[in-house]
Amino acid sequence: MSSKSLTVLPPGLLTAADYERLAPQFLDAGTLAYLNGGSGAEITLRDNLAAFARHRILPRLLRDCGGGSTALSLLGRPFHHPLLLAPVAFQQLAHPDGERATARAAAATDTGLVLSTLSSVTLEAVAAETPGEKWFQLYFQPDRAATADLVRRAEAAGYGALMVTLDTPVQPAGERATRAGFVMPASVRAANLTGYAPPPRRVLNAGGSLLFQGVMADAPGWKDLEWLLGLTRLPVVVKGVAHPDDAARMKALGVAGLVVSNHGGRALDGMPSALDLLPAIRCAVGADYPLLLDGGVRSGRDAFIALAMGANAVMIGRPQLHALAVAGALGVAHLLRLLRQELELCMALAGCATVYAIGPEALHSPQL
Amino acid sequence: MSSKSLTVLPPGLLTAADYERLAPQFLDAGTLAYLNGGSGAEITLRDNLAAFARHRILPRLLRDCGGGSTALSLLGRPFHHPLLLAPVAFQQLAHPDGERATARAAAATDTGLVLSTLSSVTLEAVAAETPGEKWFQLYFQPDRAATADLVRRAEAAGYGALMVTLDTPVQPAGERATRAGFVMPASVRAANLTGYAPPPRRVLNAGGSLLFQGVMADAPGWKDLEWLLGLTRLPVVVKGVAHPDDAARMKALGVAGLVVSNHGGRALDGMPSALDLLPAIRCAVGADYPLLLDGGVRSGRDAFIALAMGANAVMIGRPQLHALAVAGALGVAHLLRLLRQELELCMALAGCATVYAIGPEALHSPQL
Amino acid sequence: MSSKSLTVLPPGLLTAADYERLAPQFLDAGTLAYLNGGSGAEITLRDNLAAFARHRILPRLLRDCGGGSTALSLLGRPFHHPLLLAPVAFQQLAHPDGERATARAAAATDTGLVLSTLSSVTLEAVAAETPGEKWFQLYFQPDRAATADLVRRAEAAGYGALMVTLDTPVQPAGERATRAGFVMPASVRAANLTGYAPPPRRVLNAGGSLLFQGVMADAPGWKDLEWLLGLTRLPVVVKGVAHPDDAARMKALGVAGLVVSNHGGRALDGMPSALDLLPAIRCAVGADYPLLLDGGVRSGRDAFIALAMGANAVMIGRPQLHALAVAGALGVAHLLRLLRQELELCMALAGCATVYAIGPEALHSPQL
Amino acid sequence: MSSKSLTVLPPGLLTAADYERLAPQFLDAGTLAYLNGGSGAEITLRDNLAAFARHRILPRLLRDCGGGSTALSLLGRPFHHPLLLAPVAFQQLAHPDGERATARAAAATDTGLVLSTLSSVTLEAVAAETPGEKWFQLYFQPDRAATADLVRRAEAAGYGALMVTLDTPVQPAGERATRAGFVMPASVRAANLTGYAPPPRRVLNAGGSLLFQGVMADAPGWKDLEWLLGLTRLPVVVKGVAHPDDAARMKALGVAGLVVSNHGGRALDGMPSALDLLPAIRCAVGADYPLLLDGGVRSGRDAFIALAMGANAVMIGRPQLHALAVAGALGVAHLLRLLRQELELCMALAGCATVYAIGPEALHSPQL
Repeated sequence: MSSKSLTVLPPGLLTAADYERLAPQFLDAGTLAYLNGGSGAEITLRDNLAAFARHRILPRLLRDCGGGSTALSLLGRPFHHPLLLAPVAFQQLAHPDGERATARAAAATDTGLVLSTLSSVTLEAVAAETPGEKWFQLYFQPDRAATADLVRRAEAAGYGALMVTLDTPVQPAGERATRAGFVMPASVRAANLTGYAPPPRRVLNAGGSLLFQGVMADAPGWKDLEWLLGLTRLPVVVKGVAHPDDAARMKALGVAGLVVSNHGGRALDGMPSALDLLPAIRCAVGADYPLLLDGGVRSGRDAFIALAMGANAVMIGRPQLHALAVAGALGVAHLLRLLRQELELCMALAGCATVYAIGPEALHSPQL
Repeated sequence: MSSKSLTVLPPGLLTAADYERLAPQFLDAGTLAYLNGGSGAEITLRDNLAAFARHRILPRLLRDCGGGSTALSLLGRPFHHPLLLAPVAFQQLAHPDGERATARAAAATDTGLVLSTLSSVTLEAVAAETPGEKWFQLYFQPDRAATADLVRRAEAAGYGALMVTLDTPVQPAGERATRAGFVMPASVRAANLTGYAPPPRRVLNAGGSLLFQGVMADAPGWKDLEWLLGLTRLPVVVKGVAHPDDAARMKALGVAGLVVSNHGGRALDGMPSALDLLPAIRCAVGADYPLLLDGGVRSGRDAFIALAMGANAVMIGRPQLHALAVAGALGVAHLLRLLRQELELCMALAGCATVYAIGPEALHSPQL
Repeated sequence: MSSKSLTVLPPGLLTAADYERLAPQFLDAGTLAYLNGGSGAEITLRDNLAAFARHRILPRLLRDCGGGSTALSLLGRPFHHPLLLAPVAFQQLAHPDGERATARAAAATDTGLVLSTLSSVTLEAVAAETPGEKWFQLYFQPDRAATADLVRRAEAAGYGALMVTLDTPVQPAGERATRAGFVMPASVRAANLTGYAPPPRRVLNAGGSLLFQGVMADAPGWKDLEWLLGLTRLPVVVKGVAHPDDAARMKALGVAGLVVSNHGGRALDGMPSALDLLPAIRCAVGADYPLLLDGGVRSGRDAFIALAMGANAVMIGRPQLHALAVAGALGVAHLLRLLRQELELCMALAGCATVYAIGPEALHSPQL
Repeated sequence: MSSKSLTVLPPGLLTAADYERLAPQFLDAGTLAYLNGGSGAEITLRDNLAAFARHRILPRLLRDCGGGSTALSLLGRPFHHPLLLAPVAFQQLAHPDGERATARAAAATDTGLVLSTLSSVTLEAVAAETPGEKWFQLYFQPDRAATADLVRRAEAAGYGALMVTLDTPVQPAGERATRAGFVMPASVRAANLTGYAPPPRRVLNAGGSLLFQGVMADAPGWKDLEWLLGLTRLPVVVKGVAHPDDAARMKALGVAGLVVSNHGGRALDGMPSALDLLPAIRCAVGADYPLLLDGGVRSGRDAFIALAMGANAVMIGRPQLHALAVAGALGVAHLLRLLRQELELCMALAGCATVYAIGPEALHSPQL
């Protein structure tokens, strides 16, 4: 849980890395391990960062960027910039205001927000904090009635899209969090799910294959996705796509967009970085299909690179928690301002007056 | 030799690496150097691990894995999973129960076991500990009579296959063990060989070429392998194959399967990692020929990668000794459970309901 | 600001790296951070050095280099060697004599000098210190009258070419300098600009896009470059070119030559190293067009590599400041002697009697 | 100079690296820096080692190596093994017996020896110590009479070939030695040259180009090599070849063989490793032309790799000095035994019964 966060920004906060550096002063070791850690040996967690470090941006000179703008349209809705807040669960772990603070920061900075099913504040309370664009991240619940109820509530509260996460039918353990002794505090709960029957408890053990005969037998399948698409008139975005064939099939089914993601290195450890997955998926879905990316975006430069590689927008995960822990809504708003300024700087120097002008020709990566 | 191993598992044992980390508390420095070390400068020992680190697994979404299983058939015999215990010599170095404990762990976890010619417990005593699938690893003895006697004993004791190791006609010294002053304790003996004449002593020195005119003149040749194939009705598997031409010739001779291996980095130092050798050998023997791999498998993810690269099963070497040293049969059984769970997790998230579904299309390794 | 620099060279000054190593003894931490730092996370700053480290030179034997020379002609003017002093701003930060000392070193070593618009000594005073070849680096000023006046003054003072820098319509902050608390001392001023109206103050903030609607709206465009070309009869060289298309367009416009540069890692962080940019630009402008390079040249070997990759000459940036801080004009002159000797050594051993003989066939870089 | 070297080998000397590790106990810091250091920033010195580390050897099984041998014929003369002692200058720096001790070790281990022009013991005295195969390394002297006299003396003393070194018409300074304050002791002299006029003293300075107009004007050219070839009936081998065109021209001139070498990283710093240079040169001179390699050979495995890449033999440089410093002739003999045993082990496990059987198909280097 968070120690007392700041109400005034300390000097020296120049980048997202500065919030990451300060966060340990505001979080106990277990919570920090839970937030920062990935699954398994954290191969994919590290890859997410390393992939961005391999790319270089090629500047252009003398281009007219005077009327430039980061604005874009996504799923037919206007966004001021392509940096969205990722659906990070249980944000009260980082700050008592939790997702309320994040939503206030979104409102203050014209930032799109995606709220997690596992938010520690109800989706209705979060919606009340921001008039801006917000989407609801959906986990399939053990029974369809609960899932359908979540969908109805998100629609009623004004969420503009559903983002259904499919990459963790079983969630691998986070070794770092386990070793640090992290236990979810009783005060932090999945606020949206209090009205529903709890999921059936499952414990993995060595006798037989509880994984295959248990968890995986109940995991959602293509039928469940089709059911969801028929249930709502909101656009449905799928999060966690890694394989181009899955991407193409989802597009064909009527899914409105995809998030190329490895769950921030918390799904299968040893899967590729999000950025390395992106080009083949863009190729599979064509140039005009909405693609988001999350995983490893730590700067406006990273966002520029992701857009140049084929993403329409990116989502920011761990950095929002670091900023939230350090300085609450103020911190998250400041972080978003820094990221947007960095993106604008890259655009200006690369001669891209709009995000639509950012393409693969803006990259030059001799070390690949 | 082992200090007192545990009878209750301590907390924090989450992965094979944890057993490796704890093992030094249960082994003297010389024994640890002997078990962990490789030949020469340990180039190949390090490569075995590094090769796995270069591969990435590509997840699939929404596939039906509810009826999944790790089961497979190998040499016509059923295995519950593709993780076999490698034929590590002199296991009483790690634990007083030696190979007896390992066999009990195999029985408890439905794991196939391969017993070394150089086991510190007789092959008959080990066979009595496990009703499960077990194979006998064979070194050619200085005279054919002893070799034939070993084969007859293995047949009589119920071993289901012979795995003849051919990669060390001369065994390079282990520098690490030598520097640590390791000497084989008098109490640990090659229990299977007590009835036979000892091998002629040879000392390498600088005058002339004792290696070529001595050791290599007595090394087994293709005729000896043919003799062995004619001697037994058990399937014969060759361990230590590195070159595709050797692999193809063995298949043509009637060898039942191969182990792609560099003897855990204890044969020629500077030879490639086992994983890097695998694809060319799979290509040489065709899709349906039994191939095992050992060397560097430290997790279920590594096992998944090896299967995707063309292995039918993998063998676990040093990790079993670490677990044996830490907690005897209990430790080895726990280790095997961890590895199997990790493999199942990879299969579930990669959408592979059976081991036969694991193929090269499940990998995506952008850094190669 | 500089502490007391030396008037006698200490022993052990064998390479440019020795000046870099000693410089911290002669500069306060903030100034050092400002001089040594790059923009952002300093990715490009590090790349500039790393790129040279990937190339290897292939020696030739028995060639007649007895009449060899480093001399060259550039923009039709004679140079004794292809190592020019880059236009580093505010050199009084490193030494009280500032650009005067650098100019004396240039005169003493037959070195071409490029003076920055932002010199801390007036362009007229610097010109008086060296009879040798000197060019004037030009930044477009907020109004054309000031720009034109600078051009006239440079012409009048005997500068032989204008080098207009276009890569920083907005200059990214230097994180290192900011963190070190660097503030430009009041005593160090842009001496050439005192007569002009100050640039309109702009502060980047999060509301709207001050960058696009503010700074970039006032940034120079192609029309401004054409205006400049029509304004002066001096040859105009453009500094900061990264994209081959920009290079080709400038050549077509009548620009006399280009500097492939990333502003020493102070422009867009995350752009490629200067050396990695060079081949595509040489290809775009053809074999005979003047190309300079700066960024990462730290030795005569680096200069040789740059020439082999397609540059006609290189400019030396930070090393001149290190040498200036350590020992003033004497230090800069000594540094230039060391660099030239290293270049001559490479030429002699590579069998290149003239700089025109240095081509890509002199390189052999197996690690690329 | 050497402190007192050992007369009995201490335990733990298992590899050449052990001699390198112990050498600092027997050499003062300046001498150690001179012997171990390379030119410039030691890029090439490090590359020499790194190049070997990138290659892997592919073992073969069951081949008949019983009659194997390391013997070979080189320039029509028989050698027991392909490991020659490189012509390292001034060996009394390492041990009072200097080249006498090295020659005794050569005799004791059937090793070919190449004596440096700059030996600290006369070529006649060294010849008296070994009846085995020995060659004389020749530097062109300032006047042809002295050069011719050296050739006549080498012929008279029974040297079987001349190895003329051409890669250092100017020898770059060794920064490491300079920084360590190394000065050649008065007691260590170029014993072969005492009868000749000293070379004209030249000091490099910054005024003009003493390098080009001085040193290089006197450097040997193709005419001098032709003169040498006409002067002697001994086979002439050229040492220091890096470029395939130079190699081909020398073969055409009648040079009997080449040494692919970068002078152990003491010639042009930044040139490629010797091993990386080898394949193109082998390709240029054809399969049957004698090629030696030196630079970076530290083990029998390295020797095997060099032979597989195209060398007929290798020369051992710094390791002989380390062994000489530690234990005189005994140390050098022991080192040579270790290296030969390692080579035999590689041959046996790679199924190569002779050095002629070692070819590129024995390598498999997945990381290249």
